[in-house]
Amino acid sequence: MEKLTLIKVGGKIVEETDTLNSLLDDFVRLCGAKVLVHGGGRSATTVATQLGITTQMIDGRRVTDEAMLRVVTMVYGGLVNKQIVAGLQQRGLNALGLTGADMNYMLSEKRPAVPIDYGFVGDVKKVDGAALADLIAKNIVPVLAPLTHDGKGNLLNTNADTIAGEAAKALARYFDVTLVYCFEKKGVLLDETDENSVIPHLTENEFERLKAQNVIVGGMVPKLTNAFAALKAGVRAVVITKADDITKNVGTRIE
Amino acid sequence: MEKLTLIKVGGKIVEETDTLNSLLDDFVRLCGAKVLVHGGGRSATTVATQLGITTQMIDGRRVTDEAMLRVVTMVYGGLVNKQIVAGLQQRGLNALGLTGADMNYMLSEKRPAVPIDYGFVGDVKKVDGAALADLIAKNIVPVLAPLTHDGKGNLLNTNADTIAGEAAKALARYFDVTLVYCFEKKGVLLDETDENSVIPHLTENEFERLKAQNVIVGGMVPKLTNAFAALKAGVRAVVITKADDITKNVGTRIE
Repeated sequence: MEKLTLIKVGGKIVEETDTLNSLLDDFVRLCGAKVLVHGGGRSATTVATQLGITTQMIDGRRVTDEAMLRVVTMVYGGLVNKQIVAGLQQRGLNALGLTGADMNYMLSEKRPAVPIDYGFVGDVKKVDGAALADLIAKNIVPVLAPLTHDGKGNLLNTNADTIAGEAAKALARYFDVTLVYCFEKKGVLLDETDENSVIPHLTENEFERLKAQNVIVGGMVPKLTNAFAALKAGVRAVVITKADDITKNVGTRIE
Repeated sequence: MEKLTLIKVGGKIVEETDTLNSLLDDFVRLCGAKVLVHGGGRSATTVATQLGITTQMIDGRRVTDEAMLRVVTMVYGGLVNKQIVAGLQQRGLNALGLTGADMNYMLSEKRPAVPIDYGFVGDVKKVDGAALADLIAKNIVPVLAPLTHDGKGNLLNTNADTIAGEAAKALARYFDVTLVYCFEKKGVLLDETDENSVIPHLTENEFERLKAQNVIVGGMVPKLTNAFAALKAGVRAVVITKADDITKNVGTRIE
């Protein structure tokens, strides 16, 4: 099967011109089929603040009321997504920006309000991998915004890591998929204060052991749990690395 | 050739839930291949105001400085476009929202700053009708936002009437195209104060005569000039009608 690299980058990288340009330069140099998934939370918070809308977070996750849904639809679906698409076109890559509503490629349902009401947030139900694969076969590069829809006319805010994992799993039927999560550090660290303590390869047993020892903690735990789930669903490898390093063979590799 | 209807609707219709829903219900009922082009100027002005950005208009056209470009990218490419796409998916139409940067389907160049500096506004240079036709052949309904790009990484604000006309001309190689401009009145009126004075058919000679007599004035003049240019470029018919009437055989028909 053809190799495909799916890169997920967070808001910090894509929201500043210098880091975005550097990322896009690297992204263009990746060989084979590719997909880019982006965040945009910082810009959403900035625009919300400018509009007088308060950002409420619970456990690091955004609460998306109706006003915030309008903001994330503008920022993720418009501002951030279209700037990336224009930047890739400038570099000769035929990019196409998508939310889950576009071509109905990712359908979700609104998360139940119990135990925590996150508002207009979607849990993914169905991904149309064939639709994405069709585009990629035509040398189109999908650029995925962290928005899905419920099929009832509502857009839903959806975590970009989740979008990346779900898209990778759906594409694994058509491609040999490597899923790359860009992270602010060089990879999964044995010692959080030492950037040179990157774990180059991680097995699920080792992950469980390091989690039990509180070496791997916080937001890295769900990221890695999703990574192992992606492998079980057919994704070839998951890499956790710095955005600067996506063209290098470094970071933490899980396969 | 297969029939294709390209509907252009302005901001007023797509920015209010009731009129948008009614339009989408009608749009779904249209037979054959279809494309929807939307504006969004009112929402852009509202969001700009909320963000403390002043909207400057010259001859009814928006001046798009860098701050305003961010606003229209958010509002046209995100908010309005994605709400329409989600609404069409809800109605079973497989919609895909596009700016000119997406799939590089509409390339433009920044309008010269002389005689009037409109800022980041694009004049269309090249339309990839084949890319749109490919999507339509797969039963995908393109939803076109009034944004293009210059191939140098910049998005450019582009009049929705122009997007509609250029897309219609590019699609005329593949389809029997009817271009429908939704208008606040029932069509081109012989007497602006009388909604019953719609001119059912208009020839270019008649248009020139009525223009010389100042019966047809204002924004209708460029709209009709573009309409006749579209016919010469292979578009089968141009219809000017009320958004409520797109499924009826009424309004002013030019062919």
